Amino acid sequence: MPSIGYLGPPGTFSEEALQANLADRFSALVPYPTVTQVLLAVQAGEVDSGIVPIENSIEGSVNATIDTLTFETDLLIEAELVHPVSHRLVARPGVRPEQLTAIVSHPQATAQCRRYLNEHFPGVTIIAANSTAEAAQIVSGSDEPEGALATELAAKLYGLDVLERDVEDYEYNMTRFIVAGRTAQPRTGTDKTTLICFIQENRPGSLLEILTELASRSINLTKIESRPTKKVLGEYYFFIDIEGHQDDDDVAAALAALAGILRELKLLGSYPAVEVP
Amino acid sequence: MPSIGYLGPPGTFSEEALQANLADRFSALVPYPTVTQVLLAVQAGEVDSGIVPIENSIEGSVNATIDTLTFETDLLIEAELVHPVSHRLVARPGVRPEQLTAIVSHPQATAQCRRYLNEHFPGVTIIAANSTAEAAQIVSGSDEPEGALATELAAKLYGLDVLERDVEDYEYNMTRFIVAGRTAQPRTGTDKTTLICFIQENRPGSLLEILTELASRSINLTKIESRPTKKVLGEYYFFIDIEGHQDDDDVAAALAALAGILRELKLLGSYPAVEVP
Repeated sequence: MPSIGYLGPPGTFSEEALQANLADRFSALVPYPTVTQVLLAVQAGEVDSGIVPIENSIEGSVNATIDTLTFETDLLIEAELVHPVSHRLVARPGVRPEQLTAIVSHPQATAQCRRYLNEHFPGVTIIAANSTAEAAQIVSGSDEPEGALATELAAKLYGLDVLERDVEDYEYNMTRFIVAGRTAQPRTGTDKTTLICFIQENRPGSLLEILTELASRSINLTKIESRPTKKVLGEYYFFIDIEGHQDDDDVAAALAALAGILRELKLLGSYPAVEVP
Repeated sequence: MPSIGYLGPPGTFSEEALQANLADRFSALVPYPTVTQVLLAVQAGEVDSGIVPIENSIEGSVNATIDTLTFETDLLIEAELVHPVSHRLVARPGVRPEQLTAIVSHPQATAQCRRYLNEHFPGVTIIAANSTAEAAQIVSGSDEPEGALATELAAKLYGLDVLERDVEDYEYNMTRFIVAGRTAQPRTGTDKTTLICFIQENRPGSLLEILTELASRSINLTKIESRPTKKVLGEYYFFIDIEGHQDDDDVAAALAALAGILRELKLLGSYPAVEVP
């Protein structure tokens, strides 16, 4: 069975999503410290595939995922999956909420729980960690009564108790993950295709031209993200998801038309679309 | 003279940008712990204006800025400015690079210096901080020989030495900041206007319609960002910068047309455009 890399350390939302959806398809689950390193490990052949978050319903796109797929690898998207994000306030067994002297988490997690923290822990120090799992790890090894915002899985892995569930400010909080690898996926009838469009020059009509090629063939756009080209401030490329498989006639025709008008069209392949809860 | 809030603690890139460009226009510079809190302080009238980063040439948009302006305030953009981002590796006086046991910084700064850190400090622990200025503060108070990635200003403020300059992986690294407040700006002839578009429903043609209203009047789009509505994964609103002032005839006509087709059009006002270096 093949191996898969994920954003570690063990206990991250990426591992939780992997365990809940795909773990039985892989013989080895290998943690990497960053999203970029997961994808570079697949590119280098260290693992067969990698699972990385690409988009969250609150925070939006995961820039490191999009930029690495665009600039640093030539991988395909093999699958997508959607997993709920729910933060737990966790601490060492016996520690009560009113004792907490500090709360540790990734800045994105503390941002997602900002209102909760302001209301319940107004004076408590917020300490940053490189991931929610690292936060759990830090708290489990600390002599102080500290809390972490982390996953249920991380609480279990690091021997912590859950003090409170669902402490995020927005109730609906979903993350979409992709599995990146080298295997092109066959047509299923409900597919998505991801394309990266570098326009000829930054002029008013460029994005309009791209959208016209899609709309004129009744191809639905499910995501569009503008990202900096990293060359000049205000110069963008577009990361686009469309409905359909690149073997579908209308999609193939749109892709051919786009290749003709763009400076570069990079295809990340077609893969089965999952329904968003 | 009016007061202005900025993302603190003292020594952040926001303060550096403010000091370099606008400090003489304000009587009081007030630090806040997050971008959101800067904007909410302006909304609440605690300060007259606030300066916040909105876009970086490597990382792209600052989501907290865009989402707070969209969902939590009714402020106007009064000005924009562009400031170079350059990370310094700093440490307490006398500490040499080869002694460093850990390097502290905000996860975004460590991401921007990933190649440099891999090459020069492969085994060194990376510790997260809530800002580059907090990283400098931590290192200045530590007994260990630790380094921080921070600004020149932070090194000065916290009594640290600069071990190396310009350690970021991409040489061109610019951040665009905006000043948010309550004062509408008059037409100068080289202006920008920022609009937030909530579409009627998530259907293929919506974004195309918006762009057509602009392009048909030869209005240049300088930025477009899709952001999640925070309701359902895959539902977006659009944050758009266009060239021109809302008092210009063609811009006024386009805005009237957009108001007719959108679920909601929120205007963040018009302000003088600065040239991007």
